[in-house]
Order: sequence, then structure tokens, then C-alpha cells
Amino acid sequence: MKLWGGRFTRSADPRAEGFTSSLSFDRRLWREDLQGSRAHVRMLGAQGILSSEDVALILEGLEKVEKELKTCQFPFRQEYEDIHLNIEKRLTELIGPVGGKLHTARSRNDQVALDEHLYLRRVIEQTREGISQLQGAILELAKTHLGVLWPGYTHLQRAQPILFSHHLLAYFFMLERDYERFSDAWKRADSMPLGAGALAGTSFPIDRRQVATELDFSRVYENSLDAVSDRDFFLEFLAAAAILMMHLSRLAEELILWSTTEFAFVEMDDAFATGSSIMPQKKNPDVAELVRGKTGRVYGDLVALLTVMKGLPLAYHSDMQEDKERVFDGADTVLSVLEVMAGLLSTLKIRKERLAQAVQRDFSNATEVADYLARKGLPFREAHEVTGQVVRYALEQGKYLMDLTIEELRRFSALFQPDVFAHLSPEAVVAAKTSYGGTAPERVREELDTAERILAGRLTGKTGQAQER
Amino acid sequence: MKLWGGRFTRSADPRAEGFTSSLSFDRRLWREDLQGSRAHVRMLGAQGILSSEDVALILEGLEKVEKELKTCQFPFRQEYEDIHLNIEKRLTELIGPVGGKLHTARSRNDQVALDEHLYLRRVIEQTREGISQLQGAILELAKTHLGVLWPGYTHLQRAQPILFSHHLLAYFFMLERDYERFSDAWKRADSMPLGAGALAGTSFPIDRRQVATELDFSRVYENSLDAVSDRDFFLEFLAAAAILMMHLSRLAEELILWSTTEFAFVEMDDAFATGSSIMPQKKNPDVAELVRGKTGRVYGDLVALLTVMKGLPLAYHSDMQEDKERVFDGADTVLSVLEVMAGLLSTLKIRKERLAQAVQRDFSNATEVADYLARKGLPFREAHEVTGQVVRYALEQGKYLMDLTIEELRRFSALFQPDVFAHLSPEAVVAAKTSYGGTAPERVREELDTAERILAGRLTGKTGQAQER
Amino acid sequence: MKLWGGRFTRSADPRAEGFTSSLSFDRRLWREDLQGSRAHVRMLGAQGILSSEDVALILEGLEKVEKELKTCQFPFRQEYEDIHLNIEKRLTELIGPVGGKLHTARSRNDQVALDEHLYLRRVIEQTREGISQLQGAILELAKTHLGVLWPGYTHLQRAQPILFSHHLLAYFFMLERDYERFSDAWKRADSMPLGAGALAGTSFPIDRRQVATELDFSRVYENSLDAVSDRDFFLEFLAAAAILMMHLSRLAEELILWSTTEFAFVEMDDAFATGSSIMPQKKNPDVAELVRGKTGRVYGDLVALLTVMKGLPLAYHSDMQEDKERVFDGADTVLSVLEVMAGLLSTLKIRKERLAQAVQRDFSNATEVADYLARKGLPFREAHEVTGQVVRYALEQGKYLMDLTIEELRRFSALFQPDVFAHLSPEAVVAAKTSYGGTAPERVREELDTAERILAGRLTGKTGQAQER
Amino acid sequence: MKLWGGRFTRSADPRAEGFTSSLSFDRRLWREDLQGSRAHVRMLGAQGILSSEDVALILEGLEKVEKELKTCQFPFRQEYEDIHLNIEKRLTELIGPVGGKLHTARSRNDQVALDEHLYLRRVIEQTREGISQLQGAILELAKTHLGVLWPGYTHLQRAQPILFSHHLLAYFFMLERDYERFSDAWKRADSMPLGAGALAGTSFPIDRRQVATELDFSRVYENSLDAVSDRDFFLEFLAAAAILMMHLSRLAEELILWSTTEFAFVEMDDAFATGSSIMPQKKNPDVAELVRGKTGRVYGDLVALLTVMKGLPLAYHSDMQEDKERVFDGADTVLSVLEVMAGLLSTLKIRKERLAQAVQRDFSNATEVADYLARKGLPFREAHEVTGQVVRYALEQGKYLMDLTIEELRRFSALFQPDVFAHLSPEAVVAAKTSYGGTAPERVREELDTAERILAGRLTGKTGQAQER
Repeated sequence: MKLWGGRFTRSADPRAEGFTSSLSFDRRLWREDLQGSRAHVRMLGAQGILSSEDVALILEGLEKVEKELKTCQFPFRQEYEDIHLNIEKRLTELIGPVGGKLHTARSRNDQVALDEHLYLRRVIEQTREGISQLQGAILELAKTHLGVLWPGYTHLQRAQPILFSHHLLAYFFMLERDYERFSDAWKRADSMPLGAGALAGTSFPIDRRQVATELDFSRVYENSLDAVSDRDFFLEFLAAAAILMMHLSRLAEELILWSTTEFAFVEMDDAFATGSSIMPQKKNPDVAELVRGKTGRVYGDLVALLTVMKGLPLAYHSDMQEDKERVFDGADTVLSVLEVMAGLLSTLKIRKERLAQAVQRDFSNATEVADYLARKGLPFREAHEVTGQVVRYALEQGKYLMDLTIEELRRFSALFQPDVFAHLSPEAVVAAKTSYGGTAPERVREELDTAERILAGRLTGKTGQAQER
Repeated sequence: MKLWGGRFTRSADPRAEGFTSSLSFDRRLWREDLQGSRAHVRMLGAQGILSSEDVALILEGLEKVEKELKTCQFPFRQEYEDIHLNIEKRLTELIGPVGGKLHTARSRNDQVALDEHLYLRRVIEQTREGISQLQGAILELAKTHLGVLWPGYTHLQRAQPILFSHHLLAYFFMLERDYERFSDAWKRADSMPLGAGALAGTSFPIDRRQVATELDFSRVYENSLDAVSDRDFFLEFLAAAAILMMHLSRLAEELILWSTTEFAFVEMDDAFATGSSIMPQKKNPDVAELVRGKTGRVYGDLVALLTVMKGLPLAYHSDMQEDKERVFDGADTVLSVLEVMAGLLSTLKIRKERLAQAVQRDFSNATEVADYLARKGLPFREAHEVTGQVVRYALEQGKYLMDLTIEELRRFSALFQPDVFAHLSPEAVVAAKTSYGGTAPERVREELDTAERILAGRLTGKTGQAQER
Repeated sequence: MKLWGGRFTRSADPRAEGFTSSLSFDRRLWREDLQGSRAHVRMLGAQGILSSEDVALILEGLEKVEKELKTCQFPFRQEYEDIHLNIEKRLTELIGPVGGKLHTARSRNDQVALDEHLYLRRVIEQTREGISQLQGAILELAKTHLGVLWPGYTHLQRAQPILFSHHLLAYFFMLERDYERFSDAWKRADSMPLGAGALAGTSFPIDRRQVATELDFSRVYENSLDAVSDRDFFLEFLAAAAILMMHLSRLAEELILWSTTEFAFVEMDDAFATGSSIMPQKKNPDVAELVRGKTGRVYGDLVALLTVMKGLPLAYHSDMQEDKERVFDGADTVLSVLEVMAGLLSTLKIRKERLAQAVQRDFSNATEVADYLARKGLPFREAHEVTGQVVRYALEQGKYLMDLTIEELRRFSALFQPDVFAHLSPEAVVAAKTSYGGTAPERVREELDTAERILAGRLTGKTGQAQER
Repeated sequence: MKLWGGRFTRSADPRAEGFTSSLSFDRRLWREDLQGSRAHVRMLGAQGILSSEDVALILEGLEKVEKELKTCQFPFRQEYEDIHLNIEKRLTELIGPVGGKLHTARSRNDQVALDEHLYLRRVIEQTREGISQLQGAILELAKTHLGVLWPGYTHLQRAQPILFSHHLLAYFFMLERDYERFSDAWKRADSMPLGAGALAGTSFPIDRRQVATELDFSRVYENSLDAVSDRDFFLEFLAAAAILMMHLSRLAEELILWSTTEFAFVEMDDAFATGSSIMPQKKNPDVAELVRGKTGRVYGDLVALLTVMKGLPLAYHSDMQEDKERVFDGADTVLSVLEVMAGLLSTLKIRKERLAQAVQRDFSNATEVADYLARKGLPFREAHEVTGQVVRYALEQGKYLMDLTIEELRRFSALFQPDVFAHLSPEAVVAAKTSYGGTAPERVREELDTAERILAGRLTGKTGQAQER
């Protein structure tokens, strides 16, 4: 028997009942549902809509329900369709018909919206925490290896030598934007929908602000239709999650590359790698691959929910029931990925000897040669052309730029002087990049300081977002 | 202790172990895994790679394993990462070290590919069956209501009256294309990957064709790298599923519209509708809404897997482990949606009286007027212009075309004769559309015959795809 | 001959040249490119990297280039690959080799990043302006029709009567969140990348903050690799655009529904509708349909760029060249959709007489009956059940609730008193929904005030975001 | 003045007119539109619906129109909304009012559907041709380098040595599936929609099969609503294109990797690479990067059209106007990518000396050691464990397996005999993989034969698909 029995003359077809039930996944929201119900019933009492006896009875009953849920003794029943009805039904079994008063001035439409807001705020909090942890691991790695030179790439071709720490910090600042985005998404999640009723508000003299205050919301939805029709907060979360996953997919890709026989710049700890069932020599960057692969998952979650919401008239539609599994999946994925990446990075081994060699054997100092000529007055475009010819000559000779004599160089331009060689070592090239945000050691040290300050401020709760709420 | 222990000095970090394990979802493939292992071990025996005693022992052991799995007594252990290792490990516990011979000349890379092909072939079979069932329900409904006139729409504006059966049959033929697409996808799924080893084949003298024959595959992968790197069959399934869901989303949208107070063309059976927790009068088209919403889910699954596969070097990568959950989700969704839609349609009530009225009260006979003038020699473009003026005049008079007098009509064109009125009833308009595929009753009867023939041929296994395999 | 000729021995294959050229679409960035080059060259002068004569010459040359571009006399040449080289090349033709000094301390990687930031800031500004305009049109419509009752729907079933203005304002507040999201996206767009060089910074003593100040950026990228690898700002824009389009697709869907013969709640102005080439009576909601359809376009743009960026190692890759067309398309779409929707709404005709009728003929006052019983002390769940039975009874009698007698009502519950009828008119139902954000007239008037205040503050530049920049 | 003027009292708002016009992109369909119109008018003549004089006049007029279009002298006018009306209008200007008879028994709904089918059939043909060309380039490269050993990878870790030709041929067979998929998609594109009218068929005595025959269609749509509502053929094309692009993104990724300093397995020809505006030494795999990037574009096109079609009621909606740009973009992308990849591959240089070295310096012969032990009777699982320990020992000693003595090996298992060393060279490992589809030279030669046969059959039109039509 369903709760809308009055108007219906036939019970649900079993196929339809299984198809429409959301209990298998929305049961995850039981904490939020109880939290919301408590705030709701207290407000009903404060407003005189329910007597204080009824309120006390219901709160007591909800406590019993919570205990059953916590101890896995709650009798979930699919015929009651969702977590909301399961809880209400159980409450009524435990405390009698007064349990039926809990749903006064409330619809499942605004109830589930509240549960989802409560859930998402918690998840955003955890995501920000996970980002901070990963930023911490990056920062630690960058600090530990401040002196390590690293080939810098564009188009995956050696471009210019850089500091490994500088490379790593690029991810720190990407994650910082992610952190900001989740914080901005938080603002939209932080609006209280309960009291919107089915779509139009309610005729009971409720106080929505009291509920908001008790549940620590800083805003209340201004329009009841909007309150029950809105899933922006989920979409915005998934969009931010998709961008975050994109960042992590780039880091994962690099870790996979760096772990190859050919690059061999890093070695993953055995604890974060896996072997092969057939090839005994294999040590696979399984974790990084899965991180990269799970990017697809989160992109898919975003597309799914965008598609669901497209073209829905106001207000609530059952299509929107499809929101939860996608968001749960996206959130679970992001949280686990952040955690495992932090673990992987904090156990990563950098192969310094190999790197020291690697940065010597390429033409990534060529820009420095062009800049040298430009500083001597040659228009940059011509300096670039001359240097290109030098590179081609060296390639033909099987030499690197370092190996050329001043005479060889001067065949291409009379501007070359012996001082040019001082600019050609990778150390010199790196040291020269002193522009703000550049890879020169003193700049990178400043970056490290900035990064440290950001994290420190956040962890002691002294900065921005923490107080915003 | 993992199976690649030999080369490793440290065991997995718990975070990494949980993160990389696929057991929670790939356990669904246990039937396929056993089926593949049996065929593999028999072939190893036939080729003399394993002794017949070993083969007998292993087959016996696999039977025990199967029994445990069927009776839910199989001890799943996450530390053995996936279903393949869980089964192999259990086998070895049951029959001793000889169990370790099962993996001879096999890698998990080709093993999982085989499992996935076996799984997908079964799912495609079920999907085609589900499509046929839904087509059957549509056909039945169309046959039962052959006489019912229905407003035809373009841009959701009344366009021309049609037969309801004609409208329904449009979905029959959409589904027919879906059926064809899944049949075509079947051809690519019907290729046997085992024997590709990790990526390069094997040095054991295996016979891949024997395995293919035993498992009823008509093709064998020609290239071992391709065999383990390919997930096209999954993608093609999801693409076909996405298009199918798109079709069903259109039907769902229409059912929702037709069930409104405003259209009121159909009524869903109580068994396929749901009520409201707050509004006692509500009867919601929940099932149709969820079908429409689940379209997003399948689109998302497709995007997820496309993203996963983008840019992966050959051969296997762990990213590809992300394939299963997306395909399971897509397949489960499609199968349940097909089933519930068939149920919904076969219990749908058509509100004939309301429709009989509805088709009288609009201007959807206007094209017939223009065609009338065109048949009298007026270039169609001018006939269209004249008719437009007549419509505007009628709108201003608050009349329908039927209500105008011949004198009124002749103000717009001297070509109008009293015989024009015989063309204006919805019955006449429908009857006139006798072009092939048109909505005239005799054409629709032909369509019904065609549809019936298609289904009949399929169900008795007399047509195409059934024999193709 | 390409600009990297020095190192190359063969010129590009024509297929490759056409394939890699971005000129056909990045020429749209010429304004931004000139703006950035001017700021760059002035800074080079101020820092003593170029002489003031060189700076003056270059600025003069850039002015000539600009004039050619403005008057469509600029000689675009595909062999110079992109807008940056076309401009630099032309500059050099106009002022001689000194033009080659413009590229000192700059790479195309940071140059294009700057152009894109400049472009996007402008587009976000326009988008916010477009949102405000559409909000203004909504507000105007809501104010004009404050008294109009409207059926409120959930599941597209009549749920509870509401005010049309209340329904409209739901969109106002959705758009308000869009406005906030674009404002938040602005913060990330408002960071200055120039000076990052190819990836590592530069050895010239540049002053990035001066460039930032001249171009009115409030932040400078902290890390040079990040500066050239980042496309978050584009992704975030497209994500916000996708959510905005989702909102507009809902409004478009409703406008299409409301324009049907069956709903007939509104009529679109002839100027915002189209006809049919064959059916003279048709008036199609073409504009709204296209808005709904273009949602797919923007979703696709987002997916495209997310896919492009997945798994790219640092720093720049040519894959990223694919960013521009997707963002241009998304931005053009959003801006045109906002404009046309504002036009459509401000000419929309509301069919009041039809609506006055419509809201009388349904059961959407049933919740009020259940609430009535609940206020008399019946637990809501039981009140709901009783009311459901009353609805079923009325349906069987072919009556609405209003038409029942008090005796008939009392057969279901003794709590019914004659005062119940005062609650049943749609006016009464609407008036009762006095909870905050509810549809009661006084609440809606407050909403209108809030909306007006938001817009007013924005237009006079007195509120938040305007100053943030 | 629009063609639906009759019923309208106001002309379009300029914003709406620009917004709804499709001329800027559907003008690309002028060839198809003329082709369809000719077949249509001939049929109208043959059926006696138009007089033979009228038919002759119209055909003559269409010829003039075609000439104008071919010579770029056709006066495109946006106020006539689309290519169909532009042509009809121009026809009428050229031959007088009889031009208005062309639209007899036709709607733009079925007209555009026909144009799109004609267009797509041509594009599929070109795509299949492009695939064949690329397969040809792959085959050529594979044949030329049959002897080249190559490291085979899984998880981007060295796995087992293979033949380069074997690796390449994996792509040949992927592309073969693509070819099949496009051929299957062709079947659904090969159905003739004209004669469906606006949605319901027509009252003129047309002969749809004649039109189909003239235009070489093998099927006619069975249901008129389906004929105008269907965009499956476009979706199926985009889905096949997305999978194709996925394949090419994998090849592109590999080419990029192989071109790095670290891998250095191949060198792209200067004609298919680009340089840097700042770094003179750079030679960037620009073409391959763009191919990889354009994958996102095609994924986006697919998502866009899937979104557009979701939930559209029957029959035609203007949302569907959004189909063309997405399909044009997808088709243009795929065709250019296929062409440029063929060019890139046929000029690719393989660095044999480097590869000859590379395959010696790893542990990718370890599986062979495990197989050796398994052949000696050790269960494979134990053989794997023993070999893992040998690998770890060798790593600790800084040796490869080849470098170990038989005594060292026998510390791990007494089954090792001196004959083991014969299995350890990469040549031996490759030669051993003789299973069907494996990498042993004789197997790869068979693969080459198979591939050659496939292409040869296709080019002489002797096989399957060519005749299917």
C-alpha cells in the first residue's frame, strides 16, 4: 500500500514499482533526512503548528530511527519507494499516528531538495579538504626537491629546462583554482529550500529562516518553484569536479610518462603500483591510470545530469530523481582520487641521477641563444632565425650547442662572443628566468612561500572561504 | 600477498588496494569467466599443453567454484583484486597447485576481453528481445485503435489530422532501426580475443579457433594488440543504446504530454503511475518521466567511455577497467526501460471521446485547402498564400474553415467550388493521404501488415540476424 | 616560408598547412592581440628592453595595422598560420625589421593566453549584460500580470494554482544564479598570463604587473607553466553557459507548451514566430524551439573542450588550439539566445480569459483540503488519505471539489465544516500560500521588490560584482 | 515578406529573423537540394500531377539556378530563411509563377530530410574512401618495415617485444571496424524520405519509389512521421565518427610519444611538423596533436545532436535545424583528419638504429622465462612467481636477464637449463609468439596478406559493401 492510496484503485505493477523506487540509492541520505526532519519538527513546534508534546514524541521517535539506521537494524522496505517514506513509515510504527504529523507543511519535493543541499555542502567541504591534502603533498614534494632540474616540455618536445618544483607548483595553482571553484559552488549550495512545499509554498505559518538558522544556511530560496526545481548546485559541483578531474588526468598522464623506461624520471612506490598476471617484470602505474580513466566517469556524470535537466518544465519532475546516483558517483570518485593521489605523490621517488643527465642532452637552451642575440640588438625574429640555423648545423654535426666552438657560432652571426657559453648550461638557463612566475630558483622559492601561506591560512581557518559560511 | 609478488618488495597501500580493485563490480562477470576458462582449459588439453588429468581436475574444480558462486557461498576477497584472480585463487584452494595451470597461455588482458565479449553478446540478445517485446506492445495498441483519429503535430502545433495507429507505428519503425543497429553491433562483438595473451600472442601452441567454435564466435581477432586494446564493441553498444534511449525519450515526452489535463488524450493505468506525498489528487506519469530522465544516464555512460578511451596508447591500460561499470549501467538501464515501457503501453487507456472532439476543433485541414487549389491549377505557392488569408479571415471571425460559406471562400479565390467542403472533415483529410507511408487507413493497414511480418519473422527465427550468428 | 625556418629543411605539406592553420577563426581575436601587443611593447620600453624610438615606431605600426583591420583592408595570409604572425608579419612590412622586436620576451603561448583572457572578460561582461536584460524582460512581464492566476504543475500534472508572476520569477532567480556564476568565472578569467614565455618565464627584465595594470587585470599568474597550460577559464565559462542554456531550455519548453492549442495560455507575437511552407494555418514557436535546440550545441562545446584538455601533459599542446572555436560558438550562442528571448518575452501575449477558466477546472485545490483537515488535528498522512478518497469520489461523480456538498464531504470525515468551501477557490488557495517565497500575492509582491532591487543595484553599478573588477 | 505571409499580420523581428535563418550553413546543401528537386519534378510529371511543359520549364529553370550557384552568382538572401526557399524564390524569378508548382506535394520537412540523406550518403562514401587511404598508408609502412623490432607496451611499461608492423596493423584492423560501421550506417542513410509531406503524406498521387530509384535509394521510409522526425542517420554517423576519432587519437598519442627525445623511435617529416615562434630548436608534432584534439570536437558534435533530439515530440521541430552544423563539422573534421594522417604516416621516418638498441635493454623477455618454466611443468602461477624473483634479483644486480649466468638462474629454480638463453633475445621472443594473430614474423606476414586482400577487394569494387548499394 502506497501513501497516495486514497485516489488510486490499483496498486503498482511490480515492474513499475522496481523501476520507480529510489530506495536503493537514496538511503545514503538518511543522515541528512533525519537532520532536516528534526529542524522541521522543531520549527513546527516553535510556530505552534504542532504541540510541544507531539514535537517531543516525534523527536524521540526520530532518535530511535537513527539508532536503528546507525546499527544497521533499520528495516528498509522497497514498497515505500524512498528513504523519506521509509523513515516516516518506521517512525509511525514506533510512535503511532502522531508520526504522520511530521509531514505537515512539507512535501517530498522540498524535503529531498533540503537533503541534497545538506549532502552537497558536506561533500564540498570534504572535497576542499581533499584538495588541500593533495596540495600539501605537492608542496612537500616541491620543497624536498627544490634543486632538481627537469626538462620542460611543450608539445611533449623538450623546450626549456625548469625546476621540478616549478613544474609541480603548476599543479598546486591549478588545484587552488579548483578550491576556489568549489568554494564558489558552496555559496549556491548554501540556500535553504524547505518550506517551498510541493511548488507553491504552504498555508501553514511556518518560519523558514528558523530552519535555515538551525541548519546553518545563510540564504533561503526566494521563490518556491525555484526551490524545488533547482539542481544547479549539483550541476555546478559536477562541473567543478570535471575540471578538477581534468587537472588530475594531466598529472596522472605525466606520472605515467615519467615512469616509463624511456623517461625514467620517477619511480612509484611498490605500494602504489601493481604487477601483471603474466609478465613478471611489470610494475604498472595502475593508480595513475585509473585516475586518468575516472576522468571519463565524472565527465559522464556531468553530461548525464545536464541531459536530465534539459527542457524540463517547472516544477519538480521524476526525471530529477536521476540526479542522485550521478552526483554520488561523481563525489565518491573525486574524494577517492584526491586521497590516492596524495598518497602516491608522498611516496614518489625522484630519479635525480637520471635527471641530472637528461637535462644536459638536448637543445632546450636554444631560446637562451636567441635571447642573447636579441639582447645584443638583433630583432628577436632574426635572432630566432639565426639560432635555428645554428641548431640545424649542430644536429648535422651530431653535437649539442654546448659543444660548438665560438668560431662555429660566429659563422652564423658576428654578435656571438665567448660569453655566450656562460648562458648555455641548464643551470644558467634556469637561473636566467627571473621574471615573476618564472622558473629561476629565487622565483620558485617565492612561489613555495606563497603556496605555503595559502595552505597555512586555510588550515588555521584564518582565510576567506572558511569564514564565508 | 598479490599474484605479482615476486618482483615487488612492498605490499599495496590500503588506499591503493581499494582504489584499484575491480571486484565489487566485475564479480558480475563470473558466469562468463567460468565459461571462458572451461573453453580455454579444454583447448589446452586438446593441444597437449595440459595433460588430460590436469584438464579433468581443473574442470572439476571449476564446477565446484561455480556451485559456490551460484549458491552465494563463494568467498569473495578484495585483496585478490578482481573476479579472475578470485576464481583462480579459489580453484587452487580447492584442487591444489594444478589450479595454477589454468592461466597457462593466457593473460588477464585477453581473459577480461573474452568475458566482456561473452557478456555483451548476451546483453545484445536481451536488448533485441526487449525491443521486439516493445514493438509487439506498440503493434498491439496500433491494431486495437486503428480507427482513432489523432491530431498530428509539427512544432507541437496542430498540423494535420492523422491516425493514432500511424503515429504509434512511427515508433515501431524507429525501434526497427534500433534493432538493426544492435544486430550490426553484434557482428563486432562476435569476435574472439582469447589467445592474444598480454598483447603479443603466446608461444604455447594454442588453437584459438577451437575456443571460438566452442564459444560460438564466428570470428577471431586478427591482431593480438587489437584484441586486448579494443573496446569498440562496448562503445558501439552504448552508442546504439543512446539512440534507442533518445527514441524512448520522445515517446515518454509524448505520453507525459498526452496525460496532461490539457491534452487528456490518454490515461495511464494506476499500476504504471504514482501519486504525491502532499497533493492527494495527483496521478503522476512517473514511469515515463524516469524513462526520459534515464536518457541522460545512458548519454553519460557513452561520454564516459569515449573519454576513457581517448588517447590511450596500445595495448591495455588500467583506464579501461572503467569500462565495465558504464556498460553494466547502460545495459541495465536499457533493459529495464524496454520492459517497463512495454508494460505501460499495454495498459494504456486511449480517451476516444475526447479525441473525437479534439480533431474537429482546429485548422489542420488547411493544407487540404491549399492542395485543392493547387489541383485546380494554381501554383502551390499561391494556393498556400490564398489559404493563409482564408485562415486569417476565419480566425478573425472566430470560425473554423468548415464553418465558412462558399461565398466567403470565393472572396479569396474564384477556384473554390462547393465540392471543397467534402475535403474538410478530419476523416476526409486523413483518407486523402494515400501516398506510400501516408496516414490514409489503407496505407496504415499496410504498415501494420509490414510490422506484423517483421515481428513474426523474427520470433520464429526465420529472418536475418537470428541466423547470422 | 614559416617563421621557424631556421631549423627546418622542408616547407609544410599543403595538407598539413591547411590543417594546422588557425587563422580562419583566430582572426576574430585581432582586437585583443593588438591591445596586448601595445601593453607589452610599452612595458618593454618602460623597462629599457626596447628603446623609446623602437617603441614609438612599433606603436605607430600597430596603429596602421589596426586601421587596416578595421577597414577590412588587412591582407590575411594563411601561410602565416595564425592572427599573431599575420599581425607581426604585416607590422614588419609596414615598419621594417624593428617589427621583429615586438616578440621580444614573449612567446605565442603566453600571447594567445592573454588574447583569450581579454576576449573572455569581454564576453562575460556581455553575457552578464544579456542576463540582466532578460531578467528585466521577465520582471516587466511579471509586474504587468501580477493578478493572473496560473495552473502550477509538477510532473506536468496540475498541482496547485499559483500566480503567473510567481512562475516567471522562478526564472528570474535562476538567472540570478547564472549571473553569479559568470561573475565568479570572471575572477578566474581576470588573471594575466603574459610574461610566462613559452613555459618557463623569460630572462628579460620584464614587469608583468605593469602589463596587468594597463590591461586592468587584478591578478597575475603565479606560475609560468600554469599560465600557458590553463584553459580553466574557458571551461568554466562553458560550464556556466551550459547551465544557463539548461535554464533557458526549460523556459523555451514551457513557452512551446503554453502556445499549443491544448494549453493556449500564451500567444507569441507574429514577429517572433514563423509559418510553414506547406500548412497555411501554422504559427510555429520557432524561436523557442531553436533556443531549446541550441542547448545541445553548448553542451557539446563543453564536452569538446573537456575532452581536448583531458590527459594533456604540461605545458602547451596544439590540441589546445581547438579551444577557440568551441568557446566562440558557445559565446555567440548564449549572447544571441539571451537577446532573442528578451525580445520574445517582451512581446508575449497572455491569454487571460482562457487562464481564468483554466484554473477553475481541476483538483489542484486538494492539498488545501488536506491541510484543512490537518489544521483540525488529523495527522497529515491521514488527512492526505481522506482527501484522496474525496478526490476519487468526485472523479467518479464527474464533479470538482467545489461542486460537492458538505454532506458528501462529511461522509469521508466528520471534521469537514461548511467553512471548508472558503478554501477551495483558486484565489483562496493562492492567497493561503503565505510562507516566505510562496505564491500568495503579498509574497510575490515582495519577490518583485527583491528582483527590482537586484536589477537596480546592478544597473547603477552600486552592487557587488560591478566593483569586484 | 515571408512565404507564410497569408496568415501573418506582422513581419519578423530582425533579431528573430537572424536567429531563425539557416541560410548561412544550409547553403552547403544546394547540390543535394537541386538533385532532389529534379527527381521530384520529374516524378510529378510522370504521374501527371504537373504537365510536361511545366516540368520542362522548371527543369530548365533549375539548370539556370545551378549555373548561378556554380559560378557564385546566385543571389543569396537571408530574408528567405533557408536554401530551399532561396532556390524556389530564385526559380520563380527566372521562370515565373510556374516555379511555385515545384513545391507541390512536398513540404520543407521531407525536402530537407532528403537533402540530408543525399548529403550523408556522399559523406559516408568519402569517409570510407578516406579510411581506405589511411589503411593503405598503414599497410605500406608495415610492409616496408617488416623486420623492425619494437618494444610492446601495456600500461606504457615495456611488456614484450613485438614487430613494429604488428603494432601498426592493430590500427589497420581498428580502421577496418570503422569501415564496417560506416557501411552499416550507410544502410540506414539509404532510405528515401520524400513524399512524407509535412508529416502525414500527401493527397497527390505521387510515386515515391520512382524518386527513390532515380536517386539510387534502396529503401523508402515506411512511415511518413518517422521519415520527417528521424535523425538517426546523422547520429549514427557521428557515433561512428567519434569511435574513429578515438582510434586516431590513440595513434596520434603514440606518434607524439614516439617523437619525444626520450622515446625517439620515429621522426616526423619537416613537412608534417611545425616549429616554435620562440624556441628555435623545436620541431613539434602539431599535426598529431591537432588530430588528438579534434577528437573532442567530434565527441562534442555527437553530444550536441543527442541532446537536441532528446525528448522531442513527433514530428518535425525547429530544434532539429541544429543538426546540420554539427554534422558538417563532424564530417569535415573526419575527412581532413584521415587525409592528413595518411600524409603524415607515408612520410614518417623510423629510427631503426635506435630501436635495435631499445629492444635489448629491458625485461620484456620475462614472460618467456615464465612460459619456459611452465612448459617444464611448473604451474604457470608458480612460474610467474619464480620469474618475478629472478627479475628482482637482476634489478638489484643492475643486470638484464640475458646477463645472468645459469647458476644464478638455478638459485631460483632447478628447472632452468642452459637452453633458456636461446629464448631471451628479443628476436627469439618475437619469433616464439606464433599463435594466430600473434607477433611472430610468419603470423604478421599472414596479417599483411589479409590486410592487402581486404584493400584490394575493396578498391576493385569486388567485395561486400561496394555492391551492397
